[in-house]
Amino acid sequence: MQHAGGEITDLLLDYAQATPPSEVRDVTALSLLDWAACGIAGHAEGAFAQWSATLSTSGPCVRFDGVQASATEAALVNGTLSHALDYDDTHFAHIGHPSVVMCSTALAVAEGQGATLSQMLDAALVGAEASVAAGLWLGRDHYQVGYHQTATAGAFGATVAAGRLLALTRAEMRQALGLCASMASGLKAQFGTMGKPLNAGLAARTGVEAAQWAAAGMTAAADGLAGPLGFGETHHGTNAPAPFNWRMGGVSHKFHACCHGLHAALEAVRRVEMAGAKAVTVHTHPRWLSVCNQPAPETGLGAKFSFAHVLAMAAYGLDTGDIASFSDACAQAPDLVSFRQKVRVAGDESLSEMQARIDIDGQVYVHDLDAPLPFETRRQRIQAKARALVGARADDLWQMIEANDLPRFAQLLTS
Amino acid sequence: MQHAGGEITDLLLDYAQATPPSEVRDVTALSLLDWAACGIAGHAEGAFAQWSATLSTSGPCVRFDGVQASATEAALVNGTLSHALDYDDTHFAHIGHPSVVMCSTALAVAEGQGATLSQMLDAALVGAEASVAAGLWLGRDHYQVGYHQTATAGAFGATVAAGRLLALTRAEMRQALGLCASMASGLKAQFGTMGKPLNAGLAARTGVEAAQWAAAGMTAAADGLAGPLGFGETHHGTNAPAPFNWRMGGVSHKFHACCHGLHAALEAVRRVEMAGAKAVTVHTHPRWLSVCNQPAPETGLGAKFSFAHVLAMAAYGLDTGDIASFSDACAQAPDLVSFRQKVRVAGDESLSEMQARIDIDGQVYVHDLDAPLPFETRRQRIQAKARALVGARADDLWQMIEANDLPRFAQLLTS
Repeated sequence: MQHAGGEITDLLLDYAQATPPSEVRDVTALSLLDWAACGIAGHAEGAFAQWSATLSTSGPCVRFDGVQASATEAALVNGTLSHALDYDDTHFAHIGHPSVVMCSTALAVAEGQGATLSQMLDAALVGAEASVAAGLWLGRDHYQVGYHQTATAGAFGATVAAGRLLALTRAEMRQALGLCASMASGLKAQFGTMGKPLNAGLAARTGVEAAQWAAAGMTAAADGLAGPLGFGETHHGTNAPAPFNWRMGGVSHKFHACCHGLHAALEAVRRVEMAGAKAVTVHTHPRWLSVCNQPAPETGLGAKFSFAHVLAMAAYGLDTGDIASFSDACAQAPDLVSFRQKVRVAGDESLSEMQARIDIDGQVYVHDLDAPLPFETRRQRIQAKARALVGARADDLWQMIEANDLPRFAQLLTS
Repeated sequence: MQHAGGEITDLLLDYAQATPPSEVRDVTALSLLDWAACGIAGHAEGAFAQWSATLSTSGPCVRFDGVQASATEAALVNGTLSHALDYDDTHFAHIGHPSVVMCSTALAVAEGQGATLSQMLDAALVGAEASVAAGLWLGRDHYQVGYHQTATAGAFGATVAAGRLLALTRAEMRQALGLCASMASGLKAQFGTMGKPLNAGLAARTGVEAAQWAAAGMTAAADGLAGPLGFGETHHGTNAPAPFNWRMGGVSHKFHACCHGLHAALEAVRRVEMAGAKAVTVHTHPRWLSVCNQPAPETGLGAKFSFAHVLAMAAYGLDTGDIASFSDACAQAPDLVSFRQKVRVAGDESLSEMQARIDIDGQVYVHDLDAPLPFETRRQRIQAKARALVGARADDLWQMIEANDLPRFAQLLTS
C-alpha cells in the first residue's frame, strides 16, 4: 500500500483494515500492560477522584475507579486516569502518547461489543499507527503552534480503533473520520494542569463517539481531515508525507517516573556505582537545560525536573522507576543534596534530544533512547515497572493478556 | 466596564455576572420560544432519530425526543435537534447561531439545578452575549479559515451560561473557560451534512461539561482562550477588540424556511400583490449569486436556494415561513415555474449583504434586514412562526415563559 501525504484519509482507512505484524503486536501487548499499570496507579493517586465522581452513566465498560459505565464515558475516564501520572508510553515520530488514548478507546468498545482481548489489542494497535500517521501528516508546525498531538492526532487514531471493533464499513469509517474532524481538539497550553490528562480522555471518547455515531447513520464532511476547510487546513497541518508503515515497534516506554529529558542520562548510568564520585558532568541537548535542570529542588515534583537530583537518587540506589520515590523528603535528603552539588550539566549541540553523555571522574558513559531495546529486555523492564506500580497484580494482568481473556483482564483493572 | 481585546477572558467573566437590560431580555424570551419551536420541529423531522437513540443516560433533563437524560447529554441532543432545520436565530456580528447552543445548555443545567425559567433565560442571554464577544474577538479570519463560530465561540458562551447557573466563583469560571479552550471545536466543512447541527450540540455539551468539571476541581490553562498557545493563538484568532456591550437585542430571527440570502428579498415584497407582474428584477449583494440563485430548482431543497422560486411562492401566496411549503411538488408547480421565468437577479455592490431592492414592473421595493424590527412586530411574527411549526403548543410555551414556569415549559417540549 503506497500513499502520498494528500491521501491521508485513505491511509487511515487502510490501517483500520490491516493485519499487524506479530513483532509489533508483541510490543503493543507490553504497552497494554504498561497502560493498565499507569491507569491503576493514576486512579490510586486520587487527583481526579472528585472529577470522575461527577460522571455516572451505567453500562458494561470498566473504569479504573471501579464504576461500570457506558463505552464513551469509560473511554473518557480511563484515558484521563491512565495519563494522570504522565508515565505512559510516547511515540516521538509525531510526539504523542498513543496507548493512553488507544487502549482506553479499544477496551471500552471491546467490552461493549464482547470482543476478545486479541481483537482489542489489534484495534488499539492500528489506532495507534493511524494516530502516528495522522500526527506525521499534520506535522511539526501543528505541534509547535500549540496543538497537543496526543489529543488531536490521537482522536483520529481512536476513531480508527473504535470503528474497527464496531466493524464499520469503509464508507462508515470515512464518515466517522469526518465527524472526528469536528470534534478533535486539545491544546498544549494545558501542560502542567489536569487539562493535560483530560485531553487524552477526550480524544479517547471522541473516537468512540465518532465511530458509534457513524454507525448510527450520522453524516459528515466527506473528507473532514484533508478536504477543503478540513482539520489539516484549519489546524496548521503541513501535509507532510506519511507512507504506510508500522511504527509502534518503536514506541518509547518510560522507565523513570520523571521528565523524559532525564531518561537518557539515567539510562547511561544504570548499574554504574557512583556514590563515591568526586565530579559528575552531564552532557545533554541544550533544549533540556530550560526544561529539567533545576539545580536544587525542594519538592518531589521539582526533583522530577532535576538532572542533579535524579543522578543523586541513582547514586544512592533509589528506584527512579517508583513514583513514590519522588517525595519532598527525598528532595531534601542531606546525602542527596550533598551529592547533587558535585553534578554539572552542560549543553552539547552535537547530541540529539534522545542522547546523553556522562563523565564520572574521567569515565564516560553514553546512552541513546532511540537505540532499539531488545524485546526480552523491554518485557522484563516493563513488567518490573508494572510491579513497582501495582504489585503482584502486574503478573496477573500479564497472564490475562497472554490468555486472551478480556473479561478477567478488565476485572483486574479495578480489584 | 471597559475592556481591551486582550482582556477577553475577563470580559467573558464579567458577562457571567452581569444583569441583562430588560429590553434585551425581552428579545431573548422570544428567542427561547423560537428555539423551542425549532427544536420540536427538528425532532419531528426525524433525521437524527437513529443517532439520538444511541444516547441513553438517565437524568432530570428533558430531551426533545422525550428521553430524560443527564444535563450533558440533554445539551448535546437538544443543541443538535434545534439546529437540524437551520431555522433558528443568527447573530451576524460574528456569524453564529447563539440560541441553539445557549438555550440547550441553559435549560439542561437549569433543570439539573432546579433553577427558575427566569434564571435560565438570564444565563442563556449572558452566554449568548459572551459567545458574540468571543466570536468578535476571534474575528473574521477565524471564520474564514474554516471554523464554525456557532460551535467555537459558542462553546465559550455555553460555558458562561452553564457556569452562571452552577454559581461558579470567578476563579472557577476562569478554570471552566480554560477547560473549554481544549474542548471547543467545529468546522464549517460540515455544512450541508448532519455534522453542522451536531457542532451546535457539541458546543452546548462542552459548556455544561467545562462548568461542571471546574466545579469539581478540575484545573486547566490559566488563560486558555487568550494566553500563550491558547485557543485564539492556535485557532487563527485576530484579537479584534470586543468591548462590553449588549448585542443580543440585534439577533436576527428567520421568518422564511430557506437560505438567509433570500430573506431581504422576501421581506421587501411582503404583502405586495404581484401574481400578475410582467417583469421582476431582484438586486442583491453579488455574494448571494453563488449561494442562492438556482434559476430552475426541481426539488424542495433546491427551492430553498432560489430567488426566482421563493418570489414565485410569495406571488402565489404560499407561506415561505412553513417548512412544509418547500416540497418537490412546490418546486415543480406549473404556475410557479412559469412565474419564476419572469424573475431576473442582478448583483449590486452598493447593497449590503443584508439588503435587497426589487423592481416589479417599474415599482421599487426595498428591505434591510439590519433595520431594527419593532418589538411588538417581532413578537407577533415569532409567535406566528412558532404556531406554523408546532401549532397551538406555541401559545402554551409562551404562556409558560411569561409565567416563569420552567417545569411546565420543559414538559411542553416533548408532549
